[in-house]
Amino acid sequence: MPVKLLFVGDIVGAPGREALSRELHRLVDRHCVDLVIANGENAAGGFGLTEDTARELYSLGVDVLTSGNHIWDKKEALPYIKREEWLVRPANYPSGTAGKGSVVARTAGGIKVGILNLEGRVFMNNLECPFRTADREIELLKEQTDVIFVDFHAEATSEKVALGWYLDGRVSAVVGTHTHVQTADERILAGGTAYLSDAGMTGSFDSVIGIKKELAIEKFVTLMPTRFEVARKDLRLNGVVIEIDEASGKSLGIERISLSCS
Amino acid sequence: MPVKLLFVGDIVGAPGREALSRELHRLVDRHCVDLVIANGENAAGGFGLTEDTARELYSLGVDVLTSGNHIWDKKEALPYIKREEWLVRPANYPSGTAGKGSVVARTAGGIKVGILNLEGRVFMNNLECPFRTADREIELLKEQTDVIFVDFHAEATSEKVALGWYLDGRVSAVVGTHTHVQTADERILAGGTAYLSDAGMTGSFDSVIGIKKELAIEKFVTLMPTRFEVARKDLRLNGVVIEIDEASGKSLGIERISLSCS
Amino acid sequence: MPVKLLFVGDIVGAPGREALSRELHRLVDRHCVDLVIANGENAAGGFGLTEDTARELYSLGVDVLTSGNHIWDKKEALPYIKREEWLVRPANYPSGTAGKGSVVARTAGGIKVGILNLEGRVFMNNLECPFRTADREIELLKEQTDVIFVDFHAEATSEKVALGWYLDGRVSAVVGTHTHVQTADERILAGGTAYLSDAGMTGSFDSVIGIKKELAIEKFVTLMPTRFEVARKDLRLNGVVIEIDEASGKSLGIERISLSCS
Amino acid sequence: MPVKLLFVGDIVGAPGREALSRELHRLVDRHCVDLVIANGENAAGGFGLTEDTARELYSLGVDVLTSGNHIWDKKEALPYIKREEWLVRPANYPSGTAGKGSVVARTAGGIKVGILNLEGRVFMNNLECPFRTADREIELLKEQTDVIFVDFHAEATSEKVALGWYLDGRVSAVVGTHTHVQTADERILAGGTAYLSDAGMTGSFDSVIGIKKELAIEKFVTLMPTRFEVARKDLRLNGVVIEIDEASGKSLGIERISLSCS
Ligand SMILES: [Fe+2]
Ligand SMILES: [Fe+2]
Ligand SMILES: [Fe+2]
Ligand SMILES: [Fe+2]
Ligand SMILES: [Fe+2]
Ligand SMILES: [Fe+2]
Ligand SMILES: [Fe+2]
Ligand SMILES: [Fe+2]
Repeated sequence: MPVKLLFVGDIVGAPGREALSRELHRLVDRHCVDLVIANGENAAGGFGLTEDTARELYSLGVDVLTSGNHIWDKKEALPYIKREEWLVRPANYPSGTAGKGSVVARTAGGIKVGILNLEGRVFMNNLECPFRTADREIELLKEQTDVIFVDFHAEATSEKVALGWYLDGRVSAVVGTHTHVQTADERILAGGTAYLSDAGMTGSFDSVIGIKKELAIEKFVTLMPTRFEVARKDLRLNGVVIEIDEASGKSLGIERISLSCS
Repeated sequence: MPVKLLFVGDIVGAPGREALSRELHRLVDRHCVDLVIANGENAAGGFGLTEDTARELYSLGVDVLTSGNHIWDKKEALPYIKREEWLVRPANYPSGTAGKGSVVARTAGGIKVGILNLEGRVFMNNLECPFRTADREIELLKEQTDVIFVDFHAEATSEKVALGWYLDGRVSAVVGTHTHVQTADERILAGGTAYLSDAGMTGSFDSVIGIKKELAIEKFVTLMPTRFEVARKDLRLNGVVIEIDEASGKSLGIERISLSCS
Repeated sequence: MPVKLLFVGDIVGAPGREALSRELHRLVDRHCVDLVIANGENAAGGFGLTEDTARELYSLGVDVLTSGNHIWDKKEALPYIKREEWLVRPANYPSGTAGKGSVVARTAGGIKVGILNLEGRVFMNNLECPFRTADREIELLKEQTDVIFVDFHAEATSEKVALGWYLDGRVSAVVGTHTHVQTADERILAGGTAYLSDAGMTGSFDSVIGIKKELAIEKFVTLMPTRFEVARKDLRLNGVVIEIDEASGKSLGIERISLSCS
Repeated sequence: MPVKLLFVGDIVGAPGREALSRELHRLVDRHCVDLVIANGENAAGGFGLTEDTARELYSLGVDVLTSGNHIWDKKEALPYIKREEWLVRPANYPSGTAGKGSVVARTAGGIKVGILNLEGRVFMNNLECPFRTADREIELLKEQTDVIFVDFHAEATSEKVALGWYLDGRVSAVVGTHTHVQTADERILAGGTAYLSDAGMTGSFDSVIGIKKELAIEKFVTLMPTRFEVARKDLRLNGVVIEIDEASGKSLGIERISLSCS
């Protein structure tokens, strides 16, 4: 029997949570989604995640939250990141980092789904190698399930596409996040791994990747430090639905989601 | 009367030129294209452009070539870059740089189309400000035509989206290149400017953004200097068709193109 | 008659101001200094400059303050940066930036000294070309004086040394700042320009370039966002004394200063 | 009895080898040096190392070669890097990398000296954490000797100074390389570790860090790809002599060396 995962791209601030509250249930119904995964690194005011915003996301129907470089932005959330069972941060942070890099969730039908979060290094942080970390983490997850979803939070397309091919045939899906712009390159790779370079963003699209556009432009033109604020208009939900064969862990289909919430 | 432009994303090596030769005429016919613009920065062996490869592209039906950071890779092509009328390089290279940043072409029907090339600075070269350079160049192009196409060759989505909004209402289209992955965010902005963060790539898709995937993976895993080679299989053409109102310069439509050539 | 300039390297926080207050007068006397220039980009709590800290530095005997990338850290200081006569920020920020990039001061003996501040681009901000900006600014300063001091606030030694040679014979001195570590490469270049890659730092040396060392190490080991605090012990003053021939603007001598204040 | 180590900063091309041949013996005699360590990452034509250039350096009196990011530039040297006993490359390259990161040498008097090479990550490659790698390597070296010299090949002063403090009391010396400009911050830290942020460069100083200055300037001003050539005039040798107490592994003295060879 196939499993259907919905993955929601970076939820940016209150407008992102609003978009989710308006569209998630309908999406889940329409696509018969078994498990909802969402990237929450920008859910709290555009930068980081707090216990309150995470709880709001779970109450809206998210089963597992992934994250990325911004997950550390709210220092007060560190104890929560440590103890929250259904939240992962990139697995390739150094040993000793709060939180965990992967988790195994279970659908209502009892199917186990491994969720692995990784962060790219090109133009980003000096983390451990995402390719080698993936090898290690996948070996562990495989002891429990062959249905494995990877959120690769990265900037450079070269690194994202390379990781897709590297994991092809070993995981069910590799989906990128971080750029906040959905890419149009969804496909099922030769070995059965569903791939999409970036799932996009959930929040205001009358913006520069979620931020008020006047502020973003000002920053580029003046180079002065600029306090960013989350934009509020033109709400959309970006994500991807992936259908996976439970027995083999291979993907059967991948469909991009881009919904206007107005 | 509307003008129709076809813009083809970064053509990578001989496989990219092959993809173009197989599909371009059909595309031009199907969409009633008036002018073909293509990014040629990787047309020669994946790195740079030579006089021979440029001539091949023109003979296949390209009217104007844009480029980007890789345009300087073949040193022997410098005199050609200087004198070729229908080739532009990013306008925000320092004064004294070979070549020019914009050109005005004419469709068969006699409509003037300004083509402006810019390069981003985030994670890239220390060029002049693309926002300010755009202001200056557009003012000059406007003396000749309101139909203006901008190829913004950049890495960061924030910089690309910001430039789109910055030029909204002043140019007909802002289309990104450089990441070699097509984005799914095509739209017509509030002021009438067609926008797409990245047009994608033309060449082998059994690859990491055009390069043999084994080599790209090896580079990421070992960090050793690796000689890249262009990949050869699964040819596709990526691009975008934009329909522009000649009188106002506003865009009427934008459609992504992603064609398999096999 | 020779002019003697004392340039003090980046003053970091209250400990840096304390070091200055303990040593500056003695230094000025011992070296018969005619004009005191100091980099103040970190004078206020380690990040930026405020009106109060600037006034304290002037009252301690500083004649002209230069700065760098951190000058914008205290947003409330922007109006002050705009109006303060004896403060310069790097000249190669985009046009429209608050403040000015150069100034002409006068020694007690009436000799005019041009002070030019530039910022590097390698591993730093996307500013205008420091080489070309220097050409333009120096031409203007030369209308008033041939005695010209350049503070090149930059990271990469290649860019610093290259600018030194580029300006050799056209200015009296090129001294680097920003790394907070004094270099040992002082010399007078072939054309008469005194050169030093970095003047070093003034403040606590029981630190990682002015910051509490435990915090800096924690940041490198954990990669977590870390709130930096200025360190307080082992105060030292770093700088350089340059002797210039007033008539020709050529340098006669350059001597590094590294004083323990305890 | 104290051990005396001479460490020679990055030897750049044939002029660097020439400087070494003119001055090394005299230096060794004058300072009663027991072991000569030199950074050879630029010894072959300015970029990388070959078997021939390494042998020349050993024949001139170098006992152990350290290296850095440029060690991989000459692909033909890979088998040599793998098998040469007295050559180390940064220990924090990924597992599987050719060569080794540390070695134990023996002075004529039979004292064992551990040599560890590390590379920084700030503005450099995405390597493993140099701090954690140091912990692991030092533990192994300590089984053989307490006299340990660390060449930290890094760009950012913050990372270099932080590693110095991090290893203080655990190794005899931490000396930086890579910037090719000698710093003036030599000292013995609180725990007995000798420290210098950068040992500087050995080769032509009528240059931009070893490269012909006209070419380096051209590159900065034009941003065009420029083929660099090693400069030939004004030869100097940069390095540092460190005196270490054999029993404790603590340093007794550190003296910078900067010799003109003309
Ligand atoms: Fe994000
Ligand atoms: Fe992110
Ligand atoms: Fe390209
Ligand atoms: Fe490019
Ligand atoms: Fe500073
Ligand atoms: Fe700075
Ligand atoms: Fe080097
Ligand atoms: Fe290096």
